[in-house]
Parts: sequence; structure tokens; C-alpha cells
Amino acid sequence: MHPSTGLPVVGMVGGGQLARMTHQAAITLGQSLRVLAASPDDSAALVARDVVIGEHTSYADLETFAKACDVVTFDHEHVPGEHIRRLVAAGHTVLPGPDALLHAQDKQAMRIRLDELGLPSPRWAPVRSAGDVARMGADAGWPVVVKAVRGGYDGRGVWTVHSPAELEPLLASGTRLLVEERVPLRRELSTLVARSPHGQGAAWPVAETVQAGGVCVEVLAPAPALPDDLAENAERIALTVARELDVVGVLAVELFERTDGELLVNELAMRPHNSGHWTIEGSRTSQFEQHLRAVLDYPLGATGMAAAAVATANVLAGEPAPGAPERLDERLHHLAARWPAVKVHLYGKQPRPGRKIGHVTALGDDLEELRRDATAAAAYLATGTGQE
Amino acid sequence: MHPSTGLPVVGMVGGGQLARMTHQAAITLGQSLRVLAASPDDSAALVARDVVIGEHTSYADLETFAKACDVVTFDHEHVPGEHIRRLVAAGHTVLPGPDALLHAQDKQAMRIRLDELGLPSPRWAPVRSAGDVARMGADAGWPVVVKAVRGGYDGRGVWTVHSPAELEPLLASGTRLLVEERVPLRRELSTLVARSPHGQGAAWPVAETVQAGGVCVEVLAPAPALPDDLAENAERIALTVARELDVVGVLAVELFERTDGELLVNELAMRPHNSGHWTIEGSRTSQFEQHLRAVLDYPLGATGMAAAAVATANVLAGEPAPGAPERLDERLHHLAARWPAVKVHLYGKQPRPGRKIGHVTALGDDLEELRRDATAAAAYLATGTGQE
Repeated sequence: MHPSTGLPVVGMVGGGQLARMTHQAAITLGQSLRVLAASPDDSAALVARDVVIGEHTSYADLETFAKACDVVTFDHEHVPGEHIRRLVAAGHTVLPGPDALLHAQDKQAMRIRLDELGLPSPRWAPVRSAGDVARMGADAGWPVVVKAVRGGYDGRGVWTVHSPAELEPLLASGTRLLVEERVPLRRELSTLVARSPHGQGAAWPVAETVQAGGVCVEVLAPAPALPDDLAENAERIALTVARELDVVGVLAVELFERTDGELLVNELAMRPHNSGHWTIEGSRTSQFEQHLRAVLDYPLGATGMAAAAVATANVLAGEPAPGAPERLDERLHHLAARWPAVKVHLYGKQPRPGRKIGHVTALGDDLEELRRDATAAAAYLATGTGQE
Repeated sequence: MHPSTGLPVVGMVGGGQLARMTHQAAITLGQSLRVLAASPDDSAALVARDVVIGEHTSYADLETFAKACDVVTFDHEHVPGEHIRRLVAAGHTVLPGPDALLHAQDKQAMRIRLDELGLPSPRWAPVRSAGDVARMGADAGWPVVVKAVRGGYDGRGVWTVHSPAELEPLLASGTRLLVEERVPLRRELSTLVARSPHGQGAAWPVAETVQAGGVCVEVLAPAPALPDDLAENAERIALTVARELDVVGVLAVELFERTDGELLVNELAMRPHNSGHWTIEGSRTSQFEQHLRAVLDYPLGATGMAAAAVATANVLAGEPAPGAPERLDERLHHLAARWPAVKVHLYGKQPRPGRKIGHVTALGDDLEELRRDATAAAAYLATGTGQE
């Protein structure tokens, strides 16, 4: 319990932008998020009052951190499962719990469980040898998709493999791998839901995610022209995963919409997710507030849309164009003049090329117009050009 | 400039809920608000990373604080004007500047200036003796309203005086006073605008404020059934004050709507204001973000409504009812179940009777329904009863 406010203390392991935005939402609820960050310059550490500097791979650091928390939750999936189990055994409340979180940490465990639940995955197999990959190629066609079982994100740990020969360096690295068919895609979708320990579930409208180079660059909510039966199916899948895996907090289920209209589960994340940033302005309850409500076992907030359509675009810092304003501050200034209705979210990071330094959101009625504004504003922030 | 982000640093003097919510908005802009707070338990000090403990009445504390700020602004009007002038003379950027701020600190200076600008005030006079009050009573009718020239807020420093005899203790206290006619009211309005150093001005829709015991308890936006000409006039008055007084940041102009439809200026505040909390969810740009944009001299954000109607209600902690949940946390839990669409904002304060500990906001189409929900939810949070 917080000594000054008398409210329970939520601690988040990881000091990235998800923790930063969770702290922002915590302020509304009378809370002050406690953050375990690797560095005082981490995105969340720059803005939170109650910051502990430590390593998420160190049990000692985790336990010191957990001692002043009523509940511990996560900004990422990289905390070793054995540490989480030890925290729980020591009497700490950790949400989502280790049995749920395993399925966001270990893609093989996730695929096995989805199969058991009868939920749709691409064809997949564990990779013990090159033969497993060759068999998938022969059955489902080349190329195939090879994934690291643990530790991948934002396109890392995922490889499109066109022949058995391409697999050699991966096999040689000793990384645990699995192989999946490459699904013929119409598009990618993301279903965001939340679940409380009490068992209450709440879903936001399904969003479309647009990827480039394996990284999500745009999110459109609600997913344009999604038939009702697909939307219901996507929600049903996500709420089933949340219930059956006993997830607490926000759960993002990334889905493939196959060209024939079938939905297949791509990935799970058990925390606020990049595909849900649109909820900050676009829904009555943001994913960050909802995650807090869930781990605090408060009743969940209303998930209705606050506008007919929302487009968000990620800001991936690029090489500054010649003559473009180098300082992010200057770019922000020009952006605000050119796009007064676009909402900019900066994560407190220096714009080094390749870094995800923020996102922008546009809300309104005409999705194509919103997309144009959001992507143009994000591109301008990323490079300092393209304002015309 | 912030050593880690390279963005300019905004410092706010005062650690109350306005600074707390300004920090929350700052996070979005990549900022981290620097706060001068009297205590580490102040509302903003509980959530901000960069907190300096000091007194706003100490020039030394102010100067130490200002040294690491690119711009200094305020959560309240209580910083002595001579300290602000000294900071400016020492080369610090202080916004709003002392010449503007004087008119939010000194009601007599404000009335004189409004008269000079031809802007409408109630009939008023400085009080040098009981005779000045008697004259106002004779001219405008009893009772009259006597105000402390400096230091009043939330109903403090304002007295309704029914006869010269009632004035005696006030005169004896030595407080500088002025007297105003008591205006026959239809209702009170608040016009919120922002202005940047560049001279850009932006107005939000005019809101109605509902008072009880001199304290604002409800805010309705836009003010229901306000004729267009009155709304335009209210905006014109506020933008004129902002321009002529060279205000930078948010300016709230509290207005009386007289029974005959005339508008009269009641008070000025040059900072985010209680009557503008509805803008957090209810407008595309909140007053807190706009205040930051203004003092940073960024272009101002769009001020359109995000819903047709918004009702906010302040949470003034009361005596807990017998059998009611004593812990705010429990009350929040029940509130969230009963009113899932109401947005609760808590300020991190213990619910001691009489304290303003938060506010709630309801958005939608039917203002009467929104008012009912907002006031019921606020009353429940305040006392732990009345959920049915």
C-alpha cells in the first residue's frame, strides 16, 4: 500500500514506452507506477517518481523491487519464467502469472496450447533438424517461416526461408526453432482484450495492423470492412485464450486474415501492445488504464470507440534528410503547425535511426484521410521532411 | 535542455493537482515536468520524476529551481510578484510574465485594467473605509460582495455582506478589500483560451460552472442552450484579455451571465483551471497539453469537442457514511462496477473531509444523463454512499 495515498502499488518490470504510458494512465487512477528500469534514461524512468534501477534477469533485483509492490506486472516478456515462479512462491502477486506468461514467452508452448484448445494456428512443427523444415516446405510449399521459440520481437527472431540451405546458419546457432507455413495473407489483424482475476473480460474493436519489414508501422481501428462474423470470431479467439490460459491484464492476439477469410493466430502478447495505442484517444478506456484496472482487480472500463475511425502510425527514426531540422523539438513544432489535430506521443528517446521513438494518432470519420495525416506526420517526425 | 531527451524543460511552481495533470500531459509530448513542490507528498510530487522540494515564497528556492528550466510556469497564483520580476531580470523565461500575472493575483489591478479595456465588470469600488461599502449597498442594493484583493480562491476571501455592521471584522483584519455589487445571476460560465508568445490564440467552447458554497462542483461543456451571440461575446472577452494583458498559457475567464443576458467578468486565472478538466477527454487538446504547447511556443492544438456533451463533477471528500467503504480504493472499485463509462481522476490525496481529491467526467449525447452519472459517481467517491 502506498504510504501517502493508501492505494495499492503496481510495479512494472521494464522501463520502456509501455511502462511510460502505463504510468501516465496510473496518474488518473490516483496511482504512481513503480518501475524497474535498466537505466535512469529509460523511457519510463524519465517520467516516473518511483523508479528502481536493476536488471530484469536478476532475481535479487526483482525481489527487492517486488517487496514494495502490491502487484507486479510487465512491460515485456523477457523476465525468466523461473524468476517469476520464485517471486510467486515467495508470496508476491505477479500478473499475468507464470503459467499464462509462458505462452507469450515460448512460441512452441503457445502453439501446443492453441492446438489443444482447438484454436486456429498456421501449420507448424518444432525444428529438431533440417528435415522438419524440408517437410514443411514439401507439404505447405516454399518459402516457410522459421521462428526462434524464445526472445523474438519486432521482426527479430523471424526468418523467411526459401530452401533447406538457407536454414544452415540458423541451425548452427543452436537457437531453438519452430517452422510454420507461410500463410497467404489478406492482412494482419490484432484483437485486444483484457481480463481481471475475477474473470471479467472486455474486448476492444478489432484493429488492422500494417507491417513493413516485420515491424508494425500503422494501426487502423476498427479494421476497415471487416465482416461481422470475422470480428466476432477474432474476439471469441482472444477471449478464449484469455480465459483458458488464465491471463490477467491486457492480451493482444495478433491474427492473420488468410486470403480465404480464415483467421489464424500469429502471436500473443500479455501486456499493453503497440497495436493498442489507438485506444489512448480512440476508446473510452485506454489499454494502459485497462491493464491497471485488470491487475488491480477493479472492474474493467468501457471499451467503446471515442470516434468513428482511428489511425495510428509509429515513428521509426530515420536518417535526417539534408537541410531538415535535426532537433526533434523543431520537428514537433513544425508538425503541430501543419497537423493541429494529430496527437503526437513521444517516448523521450533521442531519434537515432531505426529506433521507435513515438507514435501519432488521428481520429475522425474518414479513415483514408486519417491514414494520410497520421503516416505523413509520423514520416515528418522521423526524418524532418515530407511536410508538403 | 533535458540532458537525455534534448527537449526544452518546463518547470511548474506548485505541486498540486494542476501540476500533476500537467505532468501527465507532458509525458505525451516527450517531456517530463519539473515541479517545485512544498512536500514530497504533494499531488504532483507523487508522480513526477524531476521534483524539487522548496517554498514558492522563497526567492532562493525559486532561483535554484529555475536554473534547470527552459521556461517556468505556475500551478497557482501565490508566487510573490517581486520574485517573478527578479527571476525575469536574472534572465529566466517565466510565462505568463509578471505583468500579465498581476491581474490574476490582484483583483483591484484586474478590475482597473478591465475598465480601461472597456470589458464588462460588475459595479465595483476599492474599500478604503466602511463608507465605500455603504455607498455600494445604497447604489446597487444589499447584500454586496466584499473580496480580498489578494489571496482568495475556492470561495475563500469572498464574503456576502448584508449590512455595514457585518463589515467590521473584515475591516479590522487589515486585509485589502474591494466591494462589488451582487449580480443577479442566471448562471456562471467559464471561457478557457490559450495564447502563445507568438500571439496565437485558441478558445475552447464556453462551459457552464455550477457552484455550491463558493466552490465549483460541476462543469458542463458546452454550456447548455447558450445563444451563439453570448458564446461569441464570451470568447471575444477572453481572447481580448489574453491579448491585451499579454497572457501566455491557459487563461480562464470566469463570467457571470446576468439575468438580463449580459456577461460580466468575475475572475481571471492564468493557468490550467478547474473549469477546464472536461478538456482531458472532451476536447482534442486538453488544457494541460495546451498550456505546455503555449509556454513552449509550439503551435496550439485543435480545441474541438471529442463528444457532443461533457459533464464533470468535483470530488469533495465528505464524512464517510456509517457502513460505507472507508478506503478510497474500495470506493473506486464499486464506482467502476456501477459506472463503467465514467472517467475517474484521482489526485493522490487522502480523502479528508473538505478536500478536493479528484474529479469525474462523463461524455456522450444526453447532458442530463451525463450530469446524473457524474454527480452520482462523484458523490459516491466522496462519501461511499449513494450508489443505488
